[in-house]
Amino acid sequence: MADGGDPTLRQLGEFPMIDRLVAHRRQPTGVTVGPGDDAAVVNMPDGRVVVTTDMLVEGRHFRLDWSSPQQVGRKAIAQNAADVESMGARASAFVVAFGAPPDTPASRAQELADGMWQEAGALGAGIVGGDLVASPQWVVSVTAFGDLGGRVPVLRSGARAGSVVAIAAGLGRSAAGYLLCRNDIGGFDEVRLRHLVPQPPYGQGVRAADAGAQAMTDVSDGLLADLGHIAHSSGVLVDLATDALRADVEAIAAAAAVVGVDPLTLVLSGGEDHALVACFPGAVPPGWRVIGTVRDGAPGVLVDGRDWAGPAGWQSFD
Amino acid sequence: MADGGDPTLRQLGEFPMIDRLVAHRRQPTGVTVGPGDDAAVVNMPDGRVVVTTDMLVEGRHFRLDWSSPQQVGRKAIAQNAADVESMGARASAFVVAFGAPPDTPASRAQELADGMWQEAGALGAGIVGGDLVASPQWVVSVTAFGDLGGRVPVLRSGARAGSVVAIAAGLGRSAAGYLLCRNDIGGFDEVRLRHLVPQPPYGQGVRAADAGAQAMTDVSDGLLADLGHIAHSSGVLVDLATDALRADVEAIAAAAAVVGVDPLTLVLSGGEDHALVACFPGAVPPGWRVIGTVRDGAPGVLVDGRDWAGPAGWQSFD
Repeated sequence: MADGGDPTLRQLGEFPMIDRLVAHRRQPTGVTVGPGDDAAVVNMPDGRVVVTTDMLVEGRHFRLDWSSPQQVGRKAIAQNAADVESMGARASAFVVAFGAPPDTPASRAQELADGMWQEAGALGAGIVGGDLVASPQWVVSVTAFGDLGGRVPVLRSGARAGSVVAIAAGLGRSAAGYLLCRNDIGGFDEVRLRHLVPQPPYGQGVRAADAGAQAMTDVSDGLLADLGHIAHSSGVLVDLATDALRADVEAIAAAAAVVGVDPLTLVLSGGEDHALVACFPGAVPPGWRVIGTVRDGAPGVLVDGRDWAGPAGWQSFD
Repeated sequence: MADGGDPTLRQLGEFPMIDRLVAHRRQPTGVTVGPGDDAAVVNMPDGRVVVTTDMLVEGRHFRLDWSSPQQVGRKAIAQNAADVESMGARASAFVVAFGAPPDTPASRAQELADGMWQEAGALGAGIVGGDLVASPQWVVSVTAFGDLGGRVPVLRSGARAGSVVAIAAGLGRSAAGYLLCRNDIGGFDEVRLRHLVPQPPYGQGVRAADAGAQAMTDVSDGLLADLGHIAHSSGVLVDLATDALRADVEAIAAAAAVVGVDPLTLVLSGGEDHALVACFPGAVPPGWRVIGTVRDGAPGVLVDGRDWAGPAGWQSFD
């Protein structure tokens, strides 16, 4: 046994490890068949299921010298839940495939699962199934399921000229936190934490849909990049007002100064905050703030009426 | 450009690659929102969704010097679909997360997707969404969704004494094919192919459920191991008759002789054939053959009334 009674995945074996991971978890109502059979069965009273998947690879999407396994688990659930939110739905269940080296201590896998359950619990959701395999490095692949509750899904393609652009939750924190971690700079714990564990505004996706949101997405690649998807899908021009982003700029200004980066650049192009951004034809609901307008024009995103000259967002294969 | 006009994933970039992967695919009816938004929306008229996930890691679950990308894609879909079948449902949609090194030629990713669509097409299903990320080696993580069509899900826990055990599709082929590949032995193309691309008996899961199957699973870890799950979940003793497995033994006897392994061992303990095995209280439906009986007794699996002394199945972390 490695580390005084903490067996490795190889020593424990796949099925006993899975037994540990699922023991004492309370599945939400609506889970007809939970872990332990060939597949799970989850109620979808709407008659439709919202589905999305994201894969996190160690060294690429997280580092185990920056994040605890618990934080990796929370992040993996949160970013999938944000995709469900941005359709106007709420995540009700997740399945997780986890690959790790055979010499991984079982306690580390347990911490990962604990983080996942913690984040899922904030949604009233559960982890209903999974797979556990050997891999040269950690790979965490999560699929989220949500129910629309009778709502029309909010796509990226519905934005119309004359609407406003609004955001729920903050921007730039994850990118600032990433730069702090990468440069090994202490302090700014809250900012760094927001990189390790994003905090999507749970419930705001449904609220936005109920308030008539025409188009919505979550900020995963950066505000300009993600609004660009809406602009091109909808055939509209989005114009952002930096005045309206002042609170975000101020929140990360000190951290940005330490890493030597313009905070507005981080707010506009930093990814992984998993805030929600949506276009509304009228008043925005509580929890949302207006940051721009939707106009006719060649599809794209302007900043204070001009093209943005800085970087636009995260690239997967750089 | 690598290889005369075939860009790498890094050269092409994530979104242009995804555009290529989803272009010209025909989504089945029932897919309300397909790829290209934050999440997909798929009809689940039953009001429940059957979900299962499996992760395949290069070097562990497949080798790109043995399998073509197209075969990896088919296998990844097939083994998830088999899990859905074994609940008494039919897979209607899949999401796929794919990790690969940035220098992977785009054409190889395209071949993987082609294989997935080919296998999904055999089910009348589609790939409704996914994720594409950088990873040191290929990682393919598939989640399958199925609809029960009003049926009660067939669990592992429903087997009762007095029933028969029956199987749909063949056994031992995948294990024999694996040994041929591993020992670099030519010939036996059909057996080797069954390792690279399993052939679950699509439609037999629903047929078994309609015929009153009490318990069902697919053979992924080996017949003894997977029937052991049914035996322990149901609290019954299963007794297999090797006479009834003669056709499987004969089908791989020549290949087994070349690799120097007892063919009955491969039939009983070889995994990844993704045949379906179920317990029926009465007559078995067409396409199924009886291979044993269910009795009262200490939960376990006997072979011709005796304990089996050989290996029982695949271990994930060996």
